[in-house]
Amino acid sequence: MDVQEQKPFVIGLDLGGTNSVFGIVDQRGQVLATNSIKTQSYKTVEDFVEAGYEAMKPIVAKVGGIGQIKAMGIGAPNGNFYRGTIENAPNLSWGHDCVVPLAEMFSEKLGIPVGLTNDANAAAIGEMQYGVARGMKNFIMITLGTGVGSGIVINGQVVYGSDGFAGELGHVTMVRGNDGRMCGCGRTGCLEAYCSATGVARTAREFLLNSDEPSELREINRDKITSLDVSIAAGKGDKMAKSIYEFTGEMLGAACADFANFSSPEAFIFFGGLTKAGDLLMEPIKTSYAKHAFEIFRDKPKFLISSLDDAAAAVLGASAIGWEL
Amino acid sequence: MDVQEQKPFVIGLDLGGTNSVFGIVDQRGQVLATNSIKTQSYKTVEDFVEAGYEAMKPIVAKVGGIGQIKAMGIGAPNGNFYRGTIENAPNLSWGHDCVVPLAEMFSEKLGIPVGLTNDANAAAIGEMQYGVARGMKNFIMITLGTGVGSGIVINGQVVYGSDGFAGELGHVTMVRGNDGRMCGCGRTGCLEAYCSATGVARTAREFLLNSDEPSELREINRDKITSLDVSIAAGKGDKMAKSIYEFTGEMLGAACADFANFSSPEAFIFFGGLTKAGDLLMEPIKTSYAKHAFEIFRDKPKFLISSLDDAAAAVLGASAIGWEL
Repeated sequence: MDVQEQKPFVIGLDLGGTNSVFGIVDQRGQVLATNSIKTQSYKTVEDFVEAGYEAMKPIVAKVGGIGQIKAMGIGAPNGNFYRGTIENAPNLSWGHDCVVPLAEMFSEKLGIPVGLTNDANAAAIGEMQYGVARGMKNFIMITLGTGVGSGIVINGQVVYGSDGFAGELGHVTMVRGNDGRMCGCGRTGCLEAYCSATGVARTAREFLLNSDEPSELREINRDKITSLDVSIAAGKGDKMAKSIYEFTGEMLGAACADFANFSSPEAFIFFGGLTKAGDLLMEPIKTSYAKHAFEIFRDKPKFLISSLDDAAAAVLGASAIGWEL
Repeated sequence: MDVQEQKPFVIGLDLGGTNSVFGIVDQRGQVLATNSIKTQSYKTVEDFVEAGYEAMKPIVAKVGGIGQIKAMGIGAPNGNFYRGTIENAPNLSWGHDCVVPLAEMFSEKLGIPVGLTNDANAAAIGEMQYGVARGMKNFIMITLGTGVGSGIVINGQVVYGSDGFAGELGHVTMVRGNDGRMCGCGRTGCLEAYCSATGVARTAREFLLNSDEPSELREINRDKITSLDVSIAAGKGDKMAKSIYEFTGEMLGAACADFANFSSPEAFIFFGGLTKAGDLLMEPIKTSYAKHAFEIFRDKPKFLISSLDDAAAAVLGASAIGWEL
C-alpha cells in the first residue's frame, strides 16, 4: 500500500440547484463533517469555487488537514465525467450556455484529484459503495426527483458512453405521437413527463379533472398540488391517490421492461422523494414489469429502494467518485 | 509473446437454423477455408458435435493441424456467453427446452478454448475486429434479418448483463397498447414485429390492403410477399415500396433515439438483408433519429451499414470471439 492509498478521507460535493453541500467521508461511508453554500449566490464560477474552498477549510481542518484527503468527487447537473465539466446546465446561473471545467478548478485549488459526474451517476456509485447495490456488477439506478435521472452500471462500471452523457433514461419516449405530454426537454412523451415529482402532480391534476371520484386531493388548490400531497393522501388510503401511484408505477414498470432488454440488470434501484410511497409505488412497478417484460428477463431483476439516507446520499454518492480516482 | 499467442488461426462457427458453417480465419480476418453441415440433421447435440468435428478435420488440416489454432468462437441463437451454452433455442431440433453446453463439448473434443455468444453479439465483435467499428469503443449493432437482434458495445466490451442475455433490442416496445402487432415472442408492439424482414413484408401487406395506390407489389400474391420483393420494387422507384422503407426507417430511428439515452454510442451499425436497400432505409432512419433524439445526443452518432461481406460476416464474427479468449 503506498502513501496515497493510506489517506483515509474523501470530499464529496453535492452540487444542487439551490445548495452545494460539501462533506468529509471516510471509507465506511460515514459523513464526518459537512458545510454548505448557496449555489446561485455567485456571479461567476470563479467566485463559486472560491466560496467553496473557504467552506471546505473548517471541515478539512477537523480531520487533520488536506494531507488526509485522497480526492474529491462532485455530483452535479449536466456533469461530464470524461471532461470533469458542467456543460450547459440550464438551472445554474453561472453554468448555463457554457462549459465549466469545475473538476480542474477545484483540483488546482486543493492540490488533489477531483472527479465529477452527474447526480444520478453519483447516486449509483454511492449505492454500489455503501448501499443496496454492494456486490452488484449490473444494475440500473432510477432517480425519481424533480426530474427522472438514471445511473447505469454494467460490469461494475458506470456507463458514460461516447461523450460522457450516457444514461438519460428519463428521456426515453413512453407515449408516442400527439398524445404525449410536453417534457421540459422540449420533446413529448418522455418518461420524465410522467414519473418525476412534477409528472405525478400533473397526473393528479388530470385525474381530478377527468373524473368526479371523491378524493381528499379535491380539498387542495388544483394548480398547487404536489407529489407530496398525493403521497400523504395515498398514505391515508385515498383511492384516487393510490390510482395515481398505480398509473406512475405501470409506466415505470413498462420502461424497466424495455431497459432490461438493454443490459439485463440484476436489480432496478429507485431513489428519491417518490420512493417514500414504498409499496404503493413499488408493487405497481413490479406488476407492470412482469406484464411487459421479455420472457427471458421476466423473473430475474430485483426491484429495490435505495438504502441510503436521502440527506447524506447525494454527498456520499459524490464522495464515492473520489475513491475511484 | 508465449506459444499460445503465436498460434495464427481461429475457428469460427456460424450456427444457424439451417446451416452450420465452420471457417478457419487468420488475424487479418481472411477466411482461409470453410466447411458446413446441416444443423438440424442430427437427433442429439452429441451427434451434431461429432459431425462438426469431422467437418472441421479437413479445413484444420489445410492450415497445418490443430496446433495452429488458438481457439474457436461460436455464434448461435440463444447463446449465453457466460456459460458457453445454447439455452432453450426454439428453432433448434436438439436445442429447444434444454440447456446445451456446446462450448464445453467442442472444447473437450478439440483441446482448445471455445467461446460462444449469440449471433448479433458475434456480429458486433466481428465488426469491431474487422469492420467499420474498428477503433470504436461505444457502438450499437442492429441486425435486421428474420428477426431484429442487437449487440451493444460499451467501453470496448460487449454487454452481456447479469445473465449473459443482455442486448435484446428487437424486443423493446415501440407500439404500446392494443394497436401493437403480435410479435413472435408472444408480446405485442416489439421493434422486431415491424423492422425485421418478416415485419417489412407485413407492412407491405398492410399498405396494400389499406390503400388503392398503384404499385408493382400488387402483381405479387399478397400472402407470399417478402422483404426482397419490396427491395426490388423500391430499387425500381416504386412509390409504395419506398414508403414501406420510410415507415420502417421512421421506427428504427425512433428506437435508436431511445437507445442513445442508454449508452450514447458513437455509431449505430446496421447489418443484414434489409440494409441492401441502402439509403432507401438509412435516410429515413437518420431523419427520424434527428426528429426524436434527446438534444444532447442529436448530432452525435453515425449511422453506418456493416462493411463485412454477408456470407463471411457471421463466420468472421464468431471467429472473433476466439481472439478474445
